[in-house]
This record gives sequence, C-alpha cells and structure tokens, in this order.
Amino acid sequence: MTTDTALYPAERLARVADAVRAAGLDVLLLTPGPDLRYVTGYDAKQLERLTCLAIPADPGKDPFLLVPRLELKAAQASPAGALDLEIVTWGETALPFGIIKKRVGEPRSVGLSDRMWALHVLQFADAFSRASQHLASTVLSPLRIRKSAAEVGALLAAGEAIDRVHANVPGWLRPGLTERQVGARIAEAILAEGHVQVDFVIVGSGPNAAAPHHEVSDRVIEDGDVGVVDIGGTMPSGYCSDCTRTYAVGHAPDEFLAYYEVLKRAQDAATASVRPGVTAESVDRTAREVIALAGYGEWFIHRTGHGIGLESHEDPYIVEGNAVPLEAGMAFSIEPGIYPGPHGARIEDIVVCADPAATGSGYKRLNNAPRELVIV
Amino acid sequence: MTTDTALYPAERLARVADAVRAAGLDVLLLTPGPDLRYVTGYDAKQLERLTCLAIPADPGKDPFLLVPRLELKAAQASPAGALDLEIVTWGETALPFGIIKKRVGEPRSVGLSDRMWALHVLQFADAFSRASQHLASTVLSPLRIRKSAAEVGALLAAGEAIDRVHANVPGWLRPGLTERQVGARIAEAILAEGHVQVDFVIVGSGPNAAAPHHEVSDRVIEDGDVGVVDIGGTMPSGYCSDCTRTYAVGHAPDEFLAYYEVLKRAQDAATASVRPGVTAESVDRTAREVIALAGYGEWFIHRTGHGIGLESHEDPYIVEGNAVPLEAGMAFSIEPGIYPGPHGARIEDIVVCADPAATGSGYKRLNNAPRELVIV
Repeated sequence: MTTDTALYPAERLARVADAVRAAGLDVLLLTPGPDLRYVTGYDAKQLERLTCLAIPADPGKDPFLLVPRLELKAAQASPAGALDLEIVTWGETALPFGIIKKRVGEPRSVGLSDRMWALHVLQFADAFSRASQHLASTVLSPLRIRKSAAEVGALLAAGEAIDRVHANVPGWLRPGLTERQVGARIAEAILAEGHVQVDFVIVGSGPNAAAPHHEVSDRVIEDGDVGVVDIGGTMPSGYCSDCTRTYAVGHAPDEFLAYYEVLKRAQDAATASVRPGVTAESVDRTAREVIALAGYGEWFIHRTGHGIGLESHEDPYIVEGNAVPLEAGMAFSIEPGIYPGPHGARIEDIVVCADPAATGSGYKRLNNAPRELVIV
Repeated sequence: MTTDTALYPAERLARVADAVRAAGLDVLLLTPGPDLRYVTGYDAKQLERLTCLAIPADPGKDPFLLVPRLELKAAQASPAGALDLEIVTWGETALPFGIIKKRVGEPRSVGLSDRMWALHVLQFADAFSRASQHLASTVLSPLRIRKSAAEVGALLAAGEAIDRVHANVPGWLRPGLTERQVGARIAEAILAEGHVQVDFVIVGSGPNAAAPHHEVSDRVIEDGDVGVVDIGGTMPSGYCSDCTRTYAVGHAPDEFLAYYEVLKRAQDAATASVRPGVTAESVDRTAREVIALAGYGEWFIHRTGHGIGLESHEDPYIVEGNAVPLEAGMAFSIEPGIYPGPHGARIEDIVVCADPAATGSGYKRLNNAPRELVIV
C-alpha cells in the first residue's frame, strides 16, 4: 500500500541505527508492538514465540529480523519485506536466542522495546548475562514523538473515524438501555467506521460518569443521567483514535451545566495555549487554572492528556512535572475532567502542535465533534 | 455476576500466596493481564500507569492491590473489590514503587507476571535492586494449567460461540470478495456471537492458505480456492475461543482432497489419544505420524497445539520436547496442518483432557463445527 511507504519510510531503519549508536547501546532488540511497527511497518502479534528485530550499533553488523519459521511469509508480505533487511527464521523446537547471540556477539548494553513481555526480558537477561538492559524508548521516543506529515494524516483519519462514531452516539444513549448495550453498538460502529480494532469503550452513566476509567456496566441508563463516552480504536494504518464527549440524557442538572461550561472553557484554553516552545506541563496548568479558579480544582483528578500515535498512550504526557517543550508534530490529547459526583464530565480532543509560521496556528484539532453539551 | 464467583473464587488469592511461599519467592508482582485476572478476576488494562497486585510470601504481610487513583472505582467495582484485599492508590504525579517498597521491604527474589511490560520490569529492577527476577508462571502455570469445572464451562461457551461464527462462514467465503472483506464480517460476527474482543481473524485463501499465520489481505477469493479460516476471541468471562476450519470454494483440487483426508485422520487420532497420563509431546507425535506415514510430513511445519484459557496461547504446549503428562482439566488446541502449496489446510478444535472414570472418555471436544470438508 502506498500509505505504508509514506507512514513507514524505508530510511527509518538507518535513522534508528544511528540513534542506537548515539545512545551508546550495543544493540536494540524490538519484539512485536508499536516500536517494531514504527521501525519496519511490520504489525506482528506479540506471542510466546520470539519475533525480534535486532539493530546492532556496530555499522559492520547488519540489522536482521528473527521470526518463527511459520511467520516467514507474513513477515515477507509485511512492509518489512520491502526493506533492505535480512529475515532469519527459527524452527519450532529450537531456541532463538543462540541465533541472535551468534550474530550480535556479547553486548554490554541492550535496548528492549518498552512493551516487551517479561517472558522475553528475562530470557534476554539470561542470554546476554553481561549486558545492562535499557528501554528502547530512550532511543525511539525522541523519534516517535514528532509525527511526520503522513503520521499526522493518519491521526486525522483516525480522528474523523471516531468523530463519525460520536455523531451516532445520541441515537444510542437512551433511557432503558444498559451501558453495556450502548457500548456494544459503539464497538460495532468503531469497526464499521474504519478501525481494525476497538481499543476501549467507556460509557459512564449516572454515578459512573464520576469514575474516569469506568468502562461499561449493566447499569440501565435513566432520564436525567449524564453520560461520559470515551472511545478509541486502531486504524489499518496502525494509528489510534481517542475522543471523549459528555452527553446529557433528557435534561441535565443545573449544577452539572455550571461545571460543564467551566470544563469546556478549560479545554478550549488549554488547546489554544498549544504552540512550539510551550511546555507540556504548562498546557496542563492552563486547563487546571481555569477549573481551579471556578472552584472545581479538587475534582480534576487526572493529568490533562497523553501523547498518541501507534499507541493510545505515549509521549508526551501533558502532566505537571513534564517540562518538555512542545514541538511541531507532537500529537496528544487534551482531556480535562471534573468529577464532583454524583456525576462528572470530560471533554477530549486529539491536538497536534503546529508551526504557526507555516500553518497560521500553533495547533490543529484532529477531533471536531461538537464540544457544546449535546442533550440526547 | 455469579459466574465471576465460580470462575474467580475468593480462596484463590490464599492458594496463590501458598504457592509463592512454596516456590521460594519473596513477593509476586502482577500487573494487568491474564495472571492478575486469574488471581483476582480484575480485568484491568495494561497501561503506562502502574497497577500491581503484590502478594508477599511472608504470612505477616497482607497482599494488596496498588492502582492509580483514577482506577480506584473500577478496581472496587471489579471482582477484586469483593476480595479480602486492600486496594491502595497512588496519585497522578507520584511514583508508585516507593509505596510497594514500604510495604514489602527489600525482597531477594520477585516473581513478575510473564506479560509485564519491560517498562515495568526495568522499573522494578531499579526499585528492588537486590532482588533476582523470575517469571510468575513458575508459580501460576501449575495452577492455571488445570481448569476448574467453571473454567471448562467458560471455555465450552467460548467454543460454542466461535462454532456459531463458523456456521456462517460458508455464506461469506464467496468468489469476488477479498479476504479482508470476509474477515471484517467474521470480526463483526465474533462480537455479535458473544465475544467482547476479536483476538485474531485469519482468512488464508488460495496460496495464502499455505501460510499458517497469514491474517487477511486484499486478495480476491476465486472459484477453486481453498480457504483456511482460523478465528478466535475473548468472552466476557475472560476465556478465549480458537477454532480453524478449511473450506473449498466451488470445488477442490484432487491433490487437496487427498491430503485433507489425511489431515482429518491425524486430527481425529491425536484427539482420541488424549487422556490423563499421556504426555503433551505424544499427542503431537500421534498427529505427526499419521501425516508422515501418508507422505506429507515435511509440510506439517508447526506444533500440534497450545493450551488455552485466559490466554489464547498458554501452557501446555503440544509440541515435541514437552514431556508434561496430561491431567484432567488441561485444555488445549489440536490443530495439525499440511501446507504443500499452492494451498494448505488446517483443522483445529479445543479439547479438554478428562477423567475417563468420571466422564467415560479421556477428552471432550469444545468445538463441534463439522470437520468434514465444507465446499461453499
């Protein structure tokens, strides 16, 4: 597919090898997951059978992709098959670590993909007993955190897909249905609108609206409920969507309307503050200040946001203590919430930091479902 | 839900603590995933924010579940909330490892859930710098490998759900559709038939039938194709389904019909060989012998099967070299395949080892879609 070439350019492998050298690691070992996909485009499943991309720092040693024999055709058919990358197989009754050792020697320091299973981390600790273990994110996060134009395009397509799902939520969030029933329709719609995977479906109605990470329950939705609907999935590109809207069923309590307006102002203010050079924590502070000034500070109990890309949650985190300056291409959620009970609200958009000189604005919203309260 | 209590009995926590002591570990640390769910019933998402069940070996120290503050309500609402288990929270800008350390002291050996992310494995290595790290499976696999009656019931319900999906496949596997289109309908049906998650959808048509782990592609299905359809999902109980059938579209080549019959005999023979005391590898050999005797041995390129439960792939693996004797309650796939190209075939059922004295047979099939070749 053409999108693969733009999203997963062939030169990325060499760029990562340079970064491995610059970080002082001897070899980077990536098992299936977002790191492997970022470097090669290969969307392999994490399994007990080891699949591993090894990128040695030594320019005399070529990177190679080790796969179980029965994954060979899948690996060749993936974008990794089009790279200048040797694919090495191991058989069903062999152990693969000897093969890696023979090729990379005895490293003193190895980088492991952040999501590698402990199963493989400890096997690598045995196989490379003289090596210190480090997270691959020390090498990859600085690359992954700045999205290319193709990646921003993929995130926008994901945002449009989840916006189409939200456009249908008012028809489903009806008294008499359970959160689980509404959630099942949303899950189907997430797939029908172009995602290949449902990542999460939160339908928090009534008191459950006050639990930010509630998922779904058998609670029956009632007239007068507030419903927090936070949903996301993964697109065929590998890139994720994530968008929250809060709905009122039938009518909304006055005290809810009061803090919903505050929340909307906070989300707008934090979004408008995004531009290159502003720190991640200052965006969090902007949202928090609006909410605190209105007297709801104690009910905003989570960070303002998280980066998004090949993972639903990745760098940069929009949280106090993260002083990283935003740069054009960084994509993240802005999702303040207020949860005083017996209800709560959250509004979330994905935003990408942009170069004002090029685009006229320091940010672009990738979700555009209405943020005004929708009474269903 | 009543099923939760039967599937995730409250006494399991104490039984696991005993096993931690018996294994000589100082503390077992379980992050979200199948291990945590097995012990507590809590179906938490693996995230960068640490959620961790700590089970100290010291009977004077109580187990506790550490969760991010915003997960507290979800944790309380989960089956873990009904256990005699303290739930401890940590805040958005704090680090949680100090809290664990304060409660468990300075362990010399820790067990980590096999699917724990490297991110947390290395953070625990820093936090408990004097401790050796081990896999939780050394403690949990001997427990998880023998399914209770409730677990077998959950696996049977999963088997029936995926059998209903297979019953509809002949209507979808039609010339002119792409594998991806067929796969999308199957994915919708996996959810519609009662799963909460699609775990994998393999539709290998034509030459792709010869790649055991092919998923779907844009290849258009043609008359005369063979189609390997290997599908599975996760039920609300947490237990997984996994079933493969091979279909012929319109008509089947003679050489295919010849080896399909061999494959069916091999699958039947391996299944019939299952009973307590027989080793896992001998079930593999039984399948392999039938196929090798018929002259197709070199085309059976993978193991015969894998255990299944809260994970699609878990112990026991039905593979040469695994001399573990089967016991009543062990559940696993029996899925020989023959892939000579330009097509291939696989037949897979989930089977549970049973006590012949109690049930009249050494095994019970949990999939019952027809194994005779279906020409669609």
